[in-house]
Amino acid sequence: MAAFEPVEDEDGLDVRRVTLVLDAVEAGDAGLLADLLAQLHAADIADLLEQISPNERLALLHLGGAAIDGEVLSELDESIREEVIEALPRAAVAEAMRELDSDDVVDILEDLGTPQQDMILEALDDADRIAVEQALGFPEASAGRLMQREVVVSPEHWTVGEAIDHLRGARHLPDQFYHVILIDPRMRPVGYVTLGRMLSSGREVRLRDILEDSFRTIEATMPEEDVAYLFNQYHLISCPVIEEGGRLVGVITIDDAMSVLDDEHEEDMLRLAGVGDGASPSDGVFTTVRQRLPWLVVNLFTASLSALVISQFEATLALIIALAAVMPIVSSTGGIAGTQSLAVAVRALATRDLTSANAARVVRREVMAGLLNGISLALILGVAGSWLYGDIWLGVVLGMAMVVNQIVAALGGVLVPLSLERWGLDPALASGTFVTTLTDVMGYLAFLGLATWLMT
Amino acid sequence: MAAFEPVEDEDGLDVRRVTLVLDAVEAGDAGLLADLLAQLHAADIADLLEQISPNERLALLHLGGAAIDGEVLSELDESIREEVIEALPRAAVAEAMRELDSDDVVDILEDLGTPQQDMILEALDDADRIAVEQALGFPEASAGRLMQREVVVSPEHWTVGEAIDHLRGARHLPDQFYHVILIDPRMRPVGYVTLGRMLSSGREVRLRDILEDSFRTIEATMPEEDVAYLFNQYHLISCPVIEEGGRLVGVITIDDAMSVLDDEHEEDMLRLAGVGDGASPSDGVFTTVRQRLPWLVVNLFTASLSALVISQFEATLALIIALAAVMPIVSSTGGIAGTQSLAVAVRALATRDLTSANAARVVRREVMAGLLNGISLALILGVAGSWLYGDIWLGVVLGMAMVVNQIVAALGGVLVPLSLERWGLDPALASGTFVTTLTDVMGYLAFLGLATWLMT
Repeated sequence: MAAFEPVEDEDGLDVRRVTLVLDAVEAGDAGLLADLLAQLHAADIADLLEQISPNERLALLHLGGAAIDGEVLSELDESIREEVIEALPRAAVAEAMRELDSDDVVDILEDLGTPQQDMILEALDDADRIAVEQALGFPEASAGRLMQREVVVSPEHWTVGEAIDHLRGARHLPDQFYHVILIDPRMRPVGYVTLGRMLSSGREVRLRDILEDSFRTIEATMPEEDVAYLFNQYHLISCPVIEEGGRLVGVITIDDAMSVLDDEHEEDMLRLAGVGDGASPSDGVFTTVRQRLPWLVVNLFTASLSALVISQFEATLALIIALAAVMPIVSSTGGIAGTQSLAVAVRALATRDLTSANAARVVRREVMAGLLNGISLALILGVAGSWLYGDIWLGVVLGMAMVVNQIVAALGGVLVPLSLERWGLDPALASGTFVTTLTDVMGYLAFLGLATWLMT
Repeated sequence: MAAFEPVEDEDGLDVRRVTLVLDAVEAGDAGLLADLLAQLHAADIADLLEQISPNERLALLHLGGAAIDGEVLSELDESIREEVIEALPRAAVAEAMRELDSDDVVDILEDLGTPQQDMILEALDDADRIAVEQALGFPEASAGRLMQREVVVSPEHWTVGEAIDHLRGARHLPDQFYHVILIDPRMRPVGYVTLGRMLSSGREVRLRDILEDSFRTIEATMPEEDVAYLFNQYHLISCPVIEEGGRLVGVITIDDAMSVLDDEHEEDMLRLAGVGDGASPSDGVFTTVRQRLPWLVVNLFTASLSALVISQFEATLALIIALAAVMPIVSSTGGIAGTQSLAVAVRALATRDLTSANAARVVRREVMAGLLNGISLALILGVAGSWLYGDIWLGVVLGMAMVVNQIVAALGGVLVPLSLERWGLDPALASGTFVTTLTDVMGYLAFLGLATWLMT
């Protein structure tokens, strides 16, 4: 009996390991470096490369480039993949690419410049190169780019025994597969059988009698975010991909869908915060500026609208200078309320829980919630304002402006993304900027307008 | 040969279907309703129930409650699950629960009140009840709650043929399984074999000779977010769960990990926006107020800090009233920059791309990016301000305050979540509130302070 080995997660990446690796690089100890990298999973080597500085990265690649195989390259963040490929010997890159399934090669090629693309395509076998070039023929971010071409199929009439014998004789099977897909003589999928079901059925059982109920297919042109939604909604584990006419062209597995879902979440979160796509800790200063400055400039102009509104009330402000100090409270609290409403709406649109079937009810709820929040905040702020400034009218004006702005915020937070969705744009593109501009402008307008009317 | 049927996605939920269902409910046509629901996947029925109004939901459940099986209940959003279970006959709920795997029953029970929990536990078979009660003995949101107890195992010494014969004879197999787990005589997992590998190997091959390299186990007490990270990082499809001492107690599959990942993303996004956990379009007005009002009240107080700062400069404002109009521009643009930096940092912490190994470099990058963004914005705002107000000093003050505040924003956006992480708190708890308070206060302080110094 084998001695029991503790199966603790010993192979993750931590600061100690990063330090050991960097020490080996600095000491120029290629043997030690190779040993250390051999203990790490490809995904952790990729994370390591992302976390160290550009100079450390270059030194590591020169000393230990042999550890960078295809899997590491496919795990790498796009932001540094080109740089890493550049630093590796061409032969090593070619070898790394030949190990990978076609979907991973496509994923890497998509983001590279033309010279690197050509170099890699030349390195592939004819069959692989054709598969990759065909995949690149599908639209960007479509099911056709995501799928692997390697499929496991069976004619409709086979039995479990015939399928098992075929699999045992097969020379090349995909790394991961979870179903045997039944196809008709024209290569059109008609159903699939899970491997678990096959293994637990007798040899004489016909595959068509143990098909899964949940069978569905995906068109090669389907956008990848719809693919991710289908996998998440229906708990798919793998799904056949068909081209026009229904012919089977590949299969998408859940790990691909999971990584698309993860990317979509990242995109939503960053767009909502007004950051350009694909921000990563390994980005340099200039990349970071390029991702953020555009929205900041937009905000500079939208914020000027607030200044314009305020400047209309300079006479009132000159009369009661205390107004200048408290006016940002109404705007700022409105900004938070708008962001809350916006985040809930963007998330619900992404998960398709907010649809035209319930949009009207959600909008009504937002208005009611804004009203109740506004009244609660107005009571606190109104009493505190009246008392601190010894002016009951200041409290009344603060409270009334607060109620108005909370309703505007709740409403804006849901209507802006709903409108963007209806116009076929990404609701997260709304970004905080639009909604906070709205609540800033309304906050100043309501507060200073009411103050002018009631206090001067 | 079977005629080819187009496999278009005909069974999703759309407005047309929702309308058809609601019409059938209104007409009291139980037969038509049952037909319509039978065409929908359980996940779509759950979405339908979430999207309609509470009254429509009650009417639907009374007329068509028979369609609400265990799978629908497990797909339902927590926010309405209790209400739905309340509306169904007890016998129907009991029957629905008996269909489910133990992990799904646990998932449903966790969020229910005690009377409903007891009712459901009583309805289960003895074996299932014990399994569920054991699972509930593990900490909330741990691997032990997430796993299914149903496992497919084999002694270490079996061959492929022996394992297949065993599976064919097994009376009850899990709905989904992707590996056969090899265990030693004390039920401790020592490796696993993928079903694909088993199917493609000869009967005489020993399982221990075709083990996966990537084998790892998860402790039952591991937090579910760490489980989700492991699945995502190492592309796991299923993973054995062990208790203290190494004994196998269950298995977690990728669909569970995917739904945890999805929940974590939702939590990050909503927390960042200052919304309490679990917001959903089906929440009522009061639930919505309860989720949002606490952060709004916090913001009311933090925003008062800005008011306090501004009130210190009333003399300056009284002298140059134009300052009141332009001062929010500096604060507002700082707020956006802080949110950008914050979103990138929170996301990178969640994916573990931001660690102590690269924190110092990321902080340096944020400062540099803040400086460059600040200079760019200062040039635009400074020139525009000088020209519009005919006062070069106003432009200089605006520009200088902008540079200071952009650096503060970029720095605050990364340091606040990093500090929370170091103190063992969720970095997303920072929410926009803290960072925007910081940028508001600094914006007013820098602008009015410089204006007082240089312009009066």
